[in-house]
Amino acid sequence: MAEQEGITVKKSENFSEWYTQVVTKSEMADYGPVQGTIAFKETSFGIWEKIQRIFDEKIKKTGHKNVYFPSLIPESFFKKEAEHFQGFVPEVFWVTHSGDNKLGERLGIRPTSETIIYHFFSRWIRSWRDLPVLVNQWCNILRAEIKSTKPFVRTSEFLWQEGHTAHETKEDADKEVMMILKEYHDLIENYLAVPVIIGRKSELEKFAGALYTTTLEGMMPDGKALQLGTSHNLGQNFSKPFEIKFLDKNGKEQNVWTTSWGISTRLLGGLIMIHGDDKGLVMPPRIAPNQIVVVPIYYKSSEKKAVMKKAEDAKEKLEKDFSVFIDNREGYTPGWKFNEWELKGIPLRIEIGPRDIKNKQMVLVRRDTNEKLIVKESDLMKKVSASLDSMQVNLYNKARKNLQDRITLVKDYEEFKKVLESKGGFAKASWCGENHCEEQVKNETGATIRIIPFKKDNKVSKCVYCNRTGKEVVYFAKAY
Amino acid sequence: MAEQEGITVKKSENFSEWYTQVVTKSEMADYGPVQGTIAFKETSFGIWEKIQRIFDEKIKKTGHKNVYFPSLIPESFFKKEAEHFQGFVPEVFWVTHSGDNKLGERLGIRPTSETIIYHFFSRWIRSWRDLPVLVNQWCNILRAEIKSTKPFVRTSEFLWQEGHTAHETKEDADKEVMMILKEYHDLIENYLAVPVIIGRKSELEKFAGALYTTTLEGMMPDGKALQLGTSHNLGQNFSKPFEIKFLDKNGKEQNVWTTSWGISTRLLGGLIMIHGDDKGLVMPPRIAPNQIVVVPIYYKSSEKKAVMKKAEDAKEKLEKDFSVFIDNREGYTPGWKFNEWELKGIPLRIEIGPRDIKNKQMVLVRRDTNEKLIVKESDLMKKVSASLDSMQVNLYNKARKNLQDRITLVKDYEEFKKVLESKGGFAKASWCGENHCEEQVKNETGATIRIIPFKKDNKVSKCVYCNRTGKEVVYFAKAY
Repeated sequence: MAEQEGITVKKSENFSEWYTQVVTKSEMADYGPVQGTIAFKETSFGIWEKIQRIFDEKIKKTGHKNVYFPSLIPESFFKKEAEHFQGFVPEVFWVTHSGDNKLGERLGIRPTSETIIYHFFSRWIRSWRDLPVLVNQWCNILRAEIKSTKPFVRTSEFLWQEGHTAHETKEDADKEVMMILKEYHDLIENYLAVPVIIGRKSELEKFAGALYTTTLEGMMPDGKALQLGTSHNLGQNFSKPFEIKFLDKNGKEQNVWTTSWGISTRLLGGLIMIHGDDKGLVMPPRIAPNQIVVVPIYYKSSEKKAVMKKAEDAKEKLEKDFSVFIDNREGYTPGWKFNEWELKGIPLRIEIGPRDIKNKQMVLVRRDTNEKLIVKESDLMKKVSASLDSMQVNLYNKARKNLQDRITLVKDYEEFKKVLESKGGFAKASWCGENHCEEQVKNETGATIRIIPFKKDNKVSKCVYCNRTGKEVVYFAKAY
Repeated sequence: MAEQEGITVKKSENFSEWYTQVVTKSEMADYGPVQGTIAFKETSFGIWEKIQRIFDEKIKKTGHKNVYFPSLIPESFFKKEAEHFQGFVPEVFWVTHSGDNKLGERLGIRPTSETIIYHFFSRWIRSWRDLPVLVNQWCNILRAEIKSTKPFVRTSEFLWQEGHTAHETKEDADKEVMMILKEYHDLIENYLAVPVIIGRKSELEKFAGALYTTTLEGMMPDGKALQLGTSHNLGQNFSKPFEIKFLDKNGKEQNVWTTSWGISTRLLGGLIMIHGDDKGLVMPPRIAPNQIVVVPIYYKSSEKKAVMKKAEDAKEKLEKDFSVFIDNREGYTPGWKFNEWELKGIPLRIEIGPRDIKNKQMVLVRRDTNEKLIVKESDLMKKVSASLDSMQVNLYNKARKNLQDRITLVKDYEEFKKVLESKGGFAKASWCGENHCEEQVKNETGATIRIIPFKKDNKVSKCVYCNRTGKEVVYFAKAY
């Protein structure tokens, strides 16, 4: 039996090292040979599969279809939309050869698929009858990260879904953007138990080539914001250079309005940072691939049979509503198993020993509170369900409180800098709307505008940087 | 309303052109800008999703876990196993730059993932307790095809699953290989309704680096074989150069035994070729994303409400057990809709018109036989179920008969050549077991050994090429 090594640093003391240890020791990921790449192991991929299942159902219900487009994009495609090219070209991995043959044109591995997809849209769309086009793909994305990489949060290869739609009017595209943002909101808050603030991006922070970008931002325990999803209205910025045109109901030729939107395996990074604790990973029950581990406890072989039978019975009952497994490995003590599954974040542990059998009871232990609950066998389903529900709510509420504590309304630039330096988080401040002020703040403090709320704040005061008339109250923060 | 264009050539007269028309006109795929790439459209990706769901359940039930490994593989990794390198290097797309930076080492985009996965296995596996490792990934694969490409059948990018496992002994690896082959067999025959023959590959045809390869081969209507899946025992051929070692139960260090196995979107090519007809695509009911289309028929607007209500009722009832949609588009005649869904291969059409409502009946039309069945409303579920079952069986049986008709036992090389030239298909012949004879046959006729049956034939005669003592009766064929 290998010696067991848990997390050796406290989350509150060395957050960055704590994160690395949780990711590797809970076996979420391992580092790849190419800088910034990781292997997604069983647990992290299991969470991703659950995210896929939940979100896939949502988009299918709203009329979207899954498809798959080529991953290799000719260099000339990127160049058709100038802002887009500038935004992405530093991160593109370029293919120059196939086998021994030098290619006539370099091919980029998709850093996002607008350009290749619009090539096809321009072939497929002819008439208003063809609209809207509502497609989505689940795929890998390559973006060479030269800055510091971090598993899940910033990697040179990640997994995501990218939705791409084309509409007759700006209004239809607006509706699509907001509808998807709402679905992301539901997924992230109600399944991942990660509270977010939502709104628009500033001109400097929007997607390269977009008319506007909407986003969801979470707040990490170290005071840095994490962008967890984006939904863009791309206007006609792409449909013009890519010549995606349709005949409208009046027989007039028009360009379509497009949107794109995505969430990625970065969500896993947010989940780990927000819910993990000094013992390791903590998975919210609604997103955990395995919700319950049953640990049979016996010290004499004469006890084994009865305990195992009881464990099997419990599993059979529970697996109707929950995902559950029995840890029946030989040669490991119950205590060793407890530690392992705590490290790996299983929401609920059920312990069954000889005394429990005698008393027709089982012991439930919640991962978030470590609370022990002795329940009657006959109450098992009810109590398990209540425990998991309560854990889901508790994780969300804790995170929500942390988010709220991290929002500080600041009045002037001095206070702004002090807040960012001391507690971090979101500095809520008035802003004149000029790129220049945003850039200066970024250069001087490292903070960017993360969110411009959809609803304009009534109490706009002077711009936190230039003291001229403010236009909006926005959320600044340092970010991953 | 655009003019409708169906398939304009007969399958029996110009198979290749027929295939291209079915693929594009039924909107299965569209050609990409990079040679050999395609866009998987809604229908083809929908079939692939069904394949994924069915096979994913199978592998999870047998203890495999989904994971995801990096797609970029350092060139040095490929070189560790010499045969493997030679086999794949002509097809690899090489990445040389990220943004403006020239990379220190070229990176290949995965043409298959053994080498990158074994890099991780060597880090993860220490003891017999860590075995078996049973992982799988669903992903895209890039192989530059310089020969003639064909949508789904031979493309420079395709989708697949690749399973990778590590075991303590050769016997465990053997069992895994055969278990997976059996699952492939079930999927392909019982869901895709594509009959296959199964067996081993010859030394020349096996996977580059394998100990042995098992395979499933289908027979296309033009007399060419199509390999539909492979399951390899890789022995210790990779675990030695990649140093994947474990301490066995006696504390002795050993190399693991590995397997790998895959099925790809090539299955869609087989499906189209085998079941399609002069009207277009035909999807077997068990693999069709949409099994039933309901077409409401009315000519006066006064009839519309009652017909639509009946159609909605039917849909509501049917969708409990089947995937069903109503084609309620305005401005298209029922006849136009019939043609469209025949072209697109929907297994069953239900027509509902005013007369049907009066008679409390509906009309079912099967895609494979074009048979019309008038059924009582009260019998709807039973009759639909029976029709779809019968269609599934009928498609399989027709294909099975075609396969059997295409197997010819040949006695000598003259007959061998004549059979391959006239009717094609599998030429069953004795073979001495030497690479040389196989190579000569390939050079002279284009046919290769597709299958060496698992069960040795009793009636081995002289080698079809060299006339020396035969060792096995094998299946030769030209292949895609």
